[in-house]
Amino acid sequence: MITEHEKQQRHQARQQRLKAQVDAAVARASIEKGLLLVITGNGKGKSTAGFGTVARAVGHGLTAAVVQFIKGGWECGERNLLQQHGVEFSVMATGFTWDTQDKAADIAAAERVWQDAERFLADDSIDVVLLDELTYMLSYHYLPLERIEQALVNRPAKQHVVITGRACHRRILELADTVSEIAAVKHAFDQGVKAQRGLDW
Amino acid sequence: MITEHEKQQRHQARQQRLKAQVDAAVARASIEKGLLLVITGNGKGKSTAGFGTVARAVGHGLTAAVVQFIKGGWECGERNLLQQHGVEFSVMATGFTWDTQDKAADIAAAERVWQDAERFLADDSIDVVLLDELTYMLSYHYLPLERIEQALVNRPAKQHVVITGRACHRRILELADTVSEIAAVKHAFDQGVKAQRGLDW
Repeated sequence: MITEHEKQQRHQARQQRLKAQVDAAVARASIEKGLLLVITGNGKGKSTAGFGTVARAVGHGLTAAVVQFIKGGWECGERNLLQQHGVEFSVMATGFTWDTQDKAADIAAAERVWQDAERFLADDSIDVVLLDELTYMLSYHYLPLERIEQALVNRPAKQHVVITGRACHRRILELADTVSEIAAVKHAFDQGVKAQRGLDW
Repeated sequence: MITEHEKQQRHQARQQRLKAQVDAAVARASIEKGLLLVITGNGKGKSTAGFGTVARAVGHGLTAAVVQFIKGGWECGERNLLQQHGVEFSVMATGFTWDTQDKAADIAAAERVWQDAERFLADDSIDVVLLDELTYMLSYHYLPLERIEQALVNRPAKQHVVITGRACHRRILELADTVSEIAAVKHAFDQGVKAQRGLDW
């Protein structure tokens, strides 16, 4: 029969072996640099992961800037909060393509906020840049891929960038250091639940 | 030859049809209730999506509370920020199982913070509860499934709960309204990049 003491000894031995493996993996990971993180896929959590990253950075006293593509002029909880902490926002403010129904105006709005994105991506006093829902600007051909690639590649070496949105362009995925793809295993909206303040916007 | 004017008319007609579909879907989604949102999978973005949801809620003036399972006593950007906005935190503060190497102490710590979780889940003045990395408490058999299910099922009807962590237990997935699974398409850590302040913690 195994005593509690023996059980604890076995647990400790297993955890020591695990710790040696973890420590070795951590020691191998020695590079520090600005990362490009892409959060794509059809599931819920892309934008909140982006804004959670900004909140994390700001909580450490780092600086951050956000460009919100698509997003309409409606109230936005994360913007309310983060603007109080000095995070600069540039908001496309058109809403969805089916709201504006005006492609030329959408493209002009995309161009306008992309100029802010280029300014942020050239500014080495900004530690983290979130380009929320940028992916649609490429899917819709509202912005040229080459200009986006160029701004990302030439950004300050220590600057982190987070890009969110569905169906991210293959070239941006290739440039990225970390890519997470969020699948919707199930979604309350499909069960008749409406979008709710504080959870969905 | 198609003129620019005709192109814009066709765009508008397509967007009008799309808007009718979207409006119908939004009209069908009429239920308002507290949701259980699970963010699981091996990819980066689970905890930041959870904290991004809390930031969103707090930005609307809603109340939130957070239980951090596993998480050690180390500094944490999102906690620094959200505590300034009145979010109550309960932190297990043990670190990983390979850090403590003491199962009995880990279980006692899990029990201690779970009591805070039960208090939050019984308090209808809290709009959003984040149970960060709760899933491991079930994988490790540190907390009984039945107690977690009971607290979730009996919580206030309008309270939203977010659970994060890998390999979420099947029964919790069944209870959830929305489940997102984050796959790691690629991860900078595997390329030798270390965990960095502001991005990873």
